[in-house]
Amino acid sequence: MSMTRWKLTIEYKGTDYAGWQRQKDDPSVQQAIEEALYGFCQKDIRLHAAGRTDSGVHATGQVAHFDLDYGDRPLTGRDLAKALNAHLREDSVSVIKAEQVDSEFHARFHAVNKRYLYRILQRSAAPTIDNGLVWHFVRPLDPDAMKDAAEVLLGHHDFTSFRASECQAKSPVKTLERLDVQWFDYDEHGGTEIRIYAEARSFLHHQVRNMVGTLTLVGEHKWTRHDVQEALEAKAREAGGPTAPPEGLYLEQVFYDE
Amino acid sequence: MSMTRWKLTIEYKGTDYAGWQRQKDDPSVQQAIEEALYGFCQKDIRLHAAGRTDSGVHATGQVAHFDLDYGDRPLTGRDLAKALNAHLREDSVSVIKAEQVDSEFHARFHAVNKRYLYRILQRSAAPTIDNGLVWHFVRPLDPDAMKDAAEVLLGHHDFTSFRASECQAKSPVKTLERLDVQWFDYDEHGGTEIRIYAEARSFLHHQVRNMVGTLTLVGEHKWTRHDVQEALEAKAREAGGPTAPPEGLYLEQVFYDE
Repeated sequence: MSMTRWKLTIEYKGTDYAGWQRQKDDPSVQQAIEEALYGFCQKDIRLHAAGRTDSGVHATGQVAHFDLDYGDRPLTGRDLAKALNAHLREDSVSVIKAEQVDSEFHARFHAVNKRYLYRILQRSAAPTIDNGLVWHFVRPLDPDAMKDAAEVLLGHHDFTSFRASECQAKSPVKTLERLDVQWFDYDEHGGTEIRIYAEARSFLHHQVRNMVGTLTLVGEHKWTRHDVQEALEAKAREAGGPTAPPEGLYLEQVFYDE
Repeated sequence: MSMTRWKLTIEYKGTDYAGWQRQKDDPSVQQAIEEALYGFCQKDIRLHAAGRTDSGVHATGQVAHFDLDYGDRPLTGRDLAKALNAHLREDSVSVIKAEQVDSEFHARFHAVNKRYLYRILQRSAAPTIDNGLVWHFVRPLDPDAMKDAAEVLLGHHDFTSFRASECQAKSPVKTLERLDVQWFDYDEHGGTEIRIYAEARSFLHHQVRNMVGTLTLVGEHKWTRHDVQEALEAKAREAGGPTAPPEGLYLEQVFYDE
């Protein structure tokens, strides 16, 4: 018996799932891929993801690992990805890459950085092409003010004010490496897309969405940069801003040491 | 009675429609907006678009005009767009802008330029987030070769080789102002997105999709730039390449003289 550990890089449209993690009654991304694995090798194989994503949250670079005993037959990453994707044809999940990795590799524990993207579409008219793929924000936003206030959250902090009550992390202290607000106006259509990139070794539950919701208060000039500072220092969830909806959030990339 | 001519700028996800034009049995974008207009003012009003788009083709900047007798009540473009969008909530159509225009304005006849975008996603795995929004191309493409060959089609030509048999245009001669091939690689995921921008005063039916299909032959190294030249000069549809699918095509913008 020769057990091989595989690393998958996965893209999915979160709209169609109740999140990454298996649920009793609702479709999950984990279940979709585990069923594809069963279809491929008729074995019940458990996937371990770099991080769970909530219902409606998308991924362009989720990572998961699993162990496969494929006997002595040769199997390339290319063939494995292709076989899994054949079983995922009816799903909004694609295996972008499959790589054989060291048997010690762990998608979650060995992740050294994760990058999330949050997309806001600020305009009056509802999104059509991007429906379910952006947070549609009707009221005007000042992205310059948001960019400025985001600096307050950078670095090593107790992020209790931006932590969901159901968060299971042992410590609320995290190091936020990047919180970058970019934006561009659409030509003819009016409207502005604001893209917020967040990077850290790990995040608290809802941390990105709570930081984004807070930054929109600044964008609306309801809060100042100083209010964000005070919210952070209060170390209490009720001091932070609202939770941005899931549809704007993308798990873009998980980084590992070589 | 005071009749006012209005210009609408319209975005839609073509996936959900049998195209712009009203159909007997299938949902169309035109019907969706005309029904919204009926909901707004209880009148049957006919829309005139800058150009019909086919089933599955998207628009971020379609333009249409219509006449409205709203009595002496004041009506701003902002209010009109908002009211129409309220009636379009269940549709994949949004009115981005509504402007009062001169009573001589004609969305189709006065258009001086139209810009289309064609998106190709070249990679093995099927698109999830962009499903229905790109042409998924599995085989490798050489975008440099495509960019080079695109130059052949620029300018004033008889485009019969790129014209659908059902095309109703009087003349196959058009002036292609721009055919620009751009591309970028996705970080982690592998895969390349190729974006082809086409601009002209007007296009023949399927012209953009037929030019794109032809350029992919060059991208696959099945054709050379010289083959594209010969196809153009043959002035026969069977000499041109295949028709690219509708899901990659976007009517981006229609230009008018001030």
